[in-house]
Amino acid sequence: MDEFSIIQQYFNVVPQRRDDVVFGIGDDAASVRVPSDKELLISTDTLVSNVHFLPEWDAYDIACKAVLVNVSDIAAMAATPCWATLALTLPNVNEDWLASFARGIHDSLAQYEIDLIGGDTTCGPLSMTLTLLGVAPVGKSIRRNGARPGDVILVTGQLGAASLAVSLLKAHNVPKDDKILLMDKLLHPNPRVDFSALLQRFATSAIDISDGLSADLSHICSASRVGATLARDAIPLHPLLPIYLKDKAVDMALTGGDDYELCFTLPPHYLGEFLAIAEQQGLVCYTIGMIDKAPGLRLTYPDGQCVTYEPKGYSHF
Amino acid sequence: MDEFSIIQQYFNVVPQRRDDVVFGIGDDAASVRVPSDKELLISTDTLVSNVHFLPEWDAYDIACKAVLVNVSDIAAMAATPCWATLALTLPNVNEDWLASFARGIHDSLAQYEIDLIGGDTTCGPLSMTLTLLGVAPVGKSIRRNGARPGDVILVTGQLGAASLAVSLLKAHNVPKDDKILLMDKLLHPNPRVDFSALLQRFATSAIDISDGLSADLSHICSASRVGATLARDAIPLHPLLPIYLKDKAVDMALTGGDDYELCFTLPPHYLGEFLAIAEQQGLVCYTIGMIDKAPGLRLTYPDGQCVTYEPKGYSHF
Repeated sequence: MDEFSIIQQYFNVVPQRRDDVVFGIGDDAASVRVPSDKELLISTDTLVSNVHFLPEWDAYDIACKAVLVNVSDIAAMAATPCWATLALTLPNVNEDWLASFARGIHDSLAQYEIDLIGGDTTCGPLSMTLTLLGVAPVGKSIRRNGARPGDVILVTGQLGAASLAVSLLKAHNVPKDDKILLMDKLLHPNPRVDFSALLQRFATSAIDISDGLSADLSHICSASRVGATLARDAIPLHPLLPIYLKDKAVDMALTGGDDYELCFTLPPHYLGEFLAIAEQQGLVCYTIGMIDKAPGLRLTYPDGQCVTYEPKGYSHF
Repeated sequence: MDEFSIIQQYFNVVPQRRDDVVFGIGDDAASVRVPSDKELLISTDTLVSNVHFLPEWDAYDIACKAVLVNVSDIAAMAATPCWATLALTLPNVNEDWLASFARGIHDSLAQYEIDLIGGDTTCGPLSMTLTLLGVAPVGKSIRRNGARPGDVILVTGQLGAASLAVSLLKAHNVPKDDKILLMDKLLHPNPRVDFSALLQRFATSAIDISDGLSADLSHICSASRVGATLARDAIPLHPLLPIYLKDKAVDMALTGGDDYELCFTLPPHYLGEFLAIAEQQGLVCYTIGMIDKAPGLRLTYPDGQCVTYEPKGYSHF
């Protein structure tokens, strides 16, 4: 089975959903139309075997993750994902693996109405690079560099479950239900594209939490040339964190990656309106702190103590 | 040195050239504006160590190749390359290697006025996936599926040098000048974006010769549901081919990949005008055959003999 049969049998099998695709898989490049009132957003993420996933994971789950981490990047820009290319490097052709992997790609793209329009299939150590293209109304995408002193800091969901899953991967004393629940958080993140319209309207900055809240919020702070103070007790923890980690739970929520919730900032005078609309739309989010002029990250405790927090997160090298 | 320092020190160092880049490196996604009279072309190619290049090659050359193979894909669509993302997977951080690699990326992108707008840096076995975005006037990009019986088949340059270079990699009896010349053909292909405007105006189909003329022309034939007959003696050979390969030279020109010339088809009544304009613009190309109704590939010999030719080319698995 050669490259072209793999593409034909596993990837060029889903009818195009989007009428803005001029042509997709099968040429040297794909072609799409970008509406003139939209800007084009481009994100690329690579998953490497034994780094971002374990080769023994179900190929379906690996595929979902490759899609979802990119969808999360587009969500972090308050944009809408539209088209994807997949560059897949395989050590050999295992048709069962490929069938399952391709199903994961197609299912997770379908969930967000994204069309797979092209890619590359090569032979080598298992890895995949997905490039995702999205759109936002011109001037409405949200970057990391717009946070201003006084802005409130919010996150879109509870943190720490994905990294708790990683830390418990090899533990034997974890009840099966907990393990299933945590692995699902790790394998099937839920990128927050549901916040895009609200962020476009109100947010001054946004990022997705892939490397850990403290590391990712620090990216916002560096890009915006500001600092941040977080109320330690306001950081929303996944309910299993305190059970397994006791007093280290907040630390994992601050440093654990792979949650793929969004962290964003709002001018304080918009907070009420923002929360009211979010509630109407059934969107839960948590106010966790405030942007300051002073660089760096600080944590306040319920007793009023305020300590500097050195951001820690996943580092690739 | 972590992912972010690598990006800052080596990749986020060239000022943006293009005013259609809204923002580039440094956010979860980059943003560009696509003019409303243009369609967007997207190509992705992965280079894997020991498959597409040898790890002992100069990092500068590996980087150039990663850019140029993608530029060639965009050239094959008769489009103009504009923006690139680079997903780089590195086994470790070697600053000399990275400096040289980054220089290769920036130099080769600059040559085509492409802006590097984003990417990903991960740890793992050496490989890289470049995604290149280009534009063409709406409806003017050229696909593989438009060849019609009677169309003439042309190529934009002499073939076989890159695969001759590969076959002589370990040979000891090759004069140094020949080896340098051939390695340059392999390492620094010359994607034919110079043909884009002419192809947009006249061509019915086009492809770049990455897997070998016979394999790539067969892709045009399959997509267009036609066949092709080539005049064996009209296939332009790199002058070193007959010297090293004697009567096997044409076979290497038909099956050898990595030349990155274009193969394209024209309605016969346009041939004269096409060649006249090409000559005015200093563009050399070669008429090598004709599209037929009958599927498959045939070779005609000077004595009138016509034989079926089974397409062969590089296969990844």
